[in-house]
Amino acid sequence: MTMHRSRMYALIVDAPDRDAPQAARFWSQALGVPARVDPAEPQFTSLAGAVDGLAVAVQSVDDAPRVHIDIETDDVDAEVDRLVRLGATEVSQWLQCHVLKAPGGHLVCVIPVHSDPELFAATARTWE
Amino acid sequence: MTMHRSRMYALIVDAPDRDAPQAARFWSQALGVPARVDPAEPQFTSLAGAVDGLAVAVQSVDDAPRVHIDIETDDVDAEVDRLVRLGATEVSQWLQCHVLKAPGGHLVCVIPVHSDPELFAATARTWE
Repeated sequence: MTMHRSRMYALIVDAPDRDAPQAARFWSQALGVPARVDPAEPQFTSLAGAVDGLAVAVQSVDDAPRVHIDIETDDVDAEVDRLVRLGATEVSQWLQCHVLKAPGGHLVCVIPVHSDPELFAATARTWE
Repeated sequence: MTMHRSRMYALIVDAPDRDAPQAARFWSQALGVPARVDPAEPQFTSLAGAVDGLAVAVQSVDDAPRVHIDIETDDVDAEVDRLVRLGATEVSQWLQCHVLKAPGGHLVCVIPVHSDPELFAATARTWE
């Protein structure tokens, strides 16, 4: 039996492109955290520090406003399979991000481990 | 000059009424945390433990699926005023919960302090 691990990694505020700069400024000030645009992925404005152990970011999207959750894992395929067995459906794949729709209609992205390895080791759940 | 404090308290997965039980079961299993219905507010299923210091819950709503953020504060009126000055608009009030729409179109609820007083004291931001 193989095992893998996962944890809730991030809360992503998806804002329509034309509103994204104002949304990033608002959430930065509302939560009292610095806004940092990632040069490698400029659609993301990171708002680190609002809650220890949780990444928060505003993403500019060509879509309606929504919030989605990222789950990070040491085995993306196994985690996608697990969530599909729990009732999620696969929507799309973008690079290493697998987008699923959860029962109830919310989006969740499954991504490789992004957080500090020590935080992941200490807080991820183990699945068999 | 008076001061008040606030912090990000919760991530609330608002699921349409007919889907809410399945959504609560999915998120409980996806995040590996117990689902507990609050007898006083049975529309909420608490999913505590996914991230330390962050409340997570599924709420049954008569509306489309969405995710909203709760900000807790020691002065609800002052915090609502602060967020409105940052660009939010007031949507509604339900008991002590003030619902605002943030720039970008996302919902945020301002509520009195719900978390442990020690956690609030240690992690809330101070506003003047």
